[in-house]
Amino acid sequence: MNLILLFEEDFISPHRVHLTGRRFLHIKDILKVHAGRELVVGKVNGLIGQGKVLNLSKDSLRMEVKLKQKAPPPLNLTLIMALPRPNVLKRTLLCAASLGIKKIYILNFFRVDKSLWNSNALEEGVIEEQLVLGLEQAKDTLMPQVFLQKWFKPFVQDKLPSMIKGTVALAAHPGVREPCPYALKKKVTLVIGPEGGMIDYEIQQLIKGGFQIVDLGPRILRFESVLPYMIGRIRP
Amino acid sequence: MNLILLFEEDFISPHRVHLTGRRFLHIKDILKVHAGRELVVGKVNGLIGQGKVLNLSKDSLRMEVKLKQKAPPPLNLTLIMALPRPNVLKRTLLCAASLGIKKIYILNFFRVDKSLWNSNALEEGVIEEQLVLGLEQAKDTLMPQVFLQKWFKPFVQDKLPSMIKGTVALAAHPGVREPCPYALKKKVTLVIGPEGGMIDYEIQQLIKGGFQIVDLGPRILRFESVLPYMIGRIRP
Repeated sequence: MNLILLFEEDFISPHRVHLTGRRFLHIKDILKVHAGRELVVGKVNGLIGQGKVLNLSKDSLRMEVKLKQKAPPPLNLTLIMALPRPNVLKRTLLCAASLGIKKIYILNFFRVDKSLWNSNALEEGVIEEQLVLGLEQAKDTLMPQVFLQKWFKPFVQDKLPSMIKGTVALAAHPGVREPCPYALKKKVTLVIGPEGGMIDYEIQQLIKGGFQIVDLGPRILRFESVLPYMIGRIRP
Repeated sequence: MNLILLFEEDFISPHRVHLTGRRFLHIKDILKVHAGRELVVGKVNGLIGQGKVLNLSKDSLRMEVKLKQKAPPPLNLTLIMALPRPNVLKRTLLCAASLGIKKIYILNFFRVDKSLWNSNALEEGVIEEQLVLGLEQAKDTLMPQVFLQKWFKPFVQDKLPSMIKGTVALAAHPGVREPCPYALKKKVTLVIGPEGGMIDYEIQQLIKGGFQIVDLGPRILRFESVLPYMIGRIRP
């Protein structure tokens, strides 16, 4: 936790917050902070600044906060990813938030196990938890939006064409000839397919929709490695 | 598992193997393979090819293997990483192996919790397990070497100077001005510091030893995201 993320309901007055639960325990037990110490804080979708701990009780603390600084600029990229297994989903959402991605579409593919759509990991609260951890890691405050898309064809045929207008549209796939470009200054739309790979029909639909299918090197990477690998490569 | 990794002791004759345990269970229960099916196999530090399942019993199977193809070329990079917490270490070793890294030094830093050096995750068998999973993921056979370096100063002062000769020596650190280069054709030596960051003394020692300290973007990434992020960026 490199920043304590604050929510509207934490504020008891314009410059004072009252924290309980996970954030309180982290400050008390992990950071071992006493009254008087200052910590980096940020208000969700708002400014970043300093929080001075006023007092700690057994189960809560109060801080005086001064918020001045803007959050880092969002990454100029929309992520469209296949639904992976629950633990991988959690880690990938945290990773996406920590990389500065602000729009995430979770999409069905042929090789996505359909039972995964009933997973608890897709509940709003569970998704938000990972996004908060990602923002706290990255010292960021702008909450990403996550959209669930259970149907591949209507999404790719009806929604994608207008979404990708004016962007560099890339889909990562192992073993293709086209190398992935570097350091893109334009906005990017990035598709990451399922663990077993995309099927030919899906690749053809994406090509028809205007996507470039790009290589990831001579090895098959794990689902959760693909996102930081691609971002490291295409970030200007 | 995109490849079944075979070891010398699996061979009962020059072209026949006998598998039990994890690999047998994976083939039987996850891949649901019957006699007659062919799978991608590879011999550790050797060739890749096809394995035809001859028969399955309750707890083992036999395959006839034909090995012809070379493993993908190693990534031209030596990794020097801080020792992280056990679960993060396991995931990072698997990730490093899947990226094609063949030399990994695990190094002590000031902000590495010293008790981590007693962790089970550093036992030879546990390390090898993760490397095998990484090779199986990446369809690779060349086993990485892992070296434990419990002392920062003698390693950086005495060993590193000759190690980095003729390589591009980079150390990733958030918040510095120098951007990380792209698509390097030369051999690379890459340092990834601990989760809390390197201290000034460590940064100065690396600079003195010939390292370039390079930026990772405006956000603080998680330890396990830094490696694929850097490799995506610097791989030619």
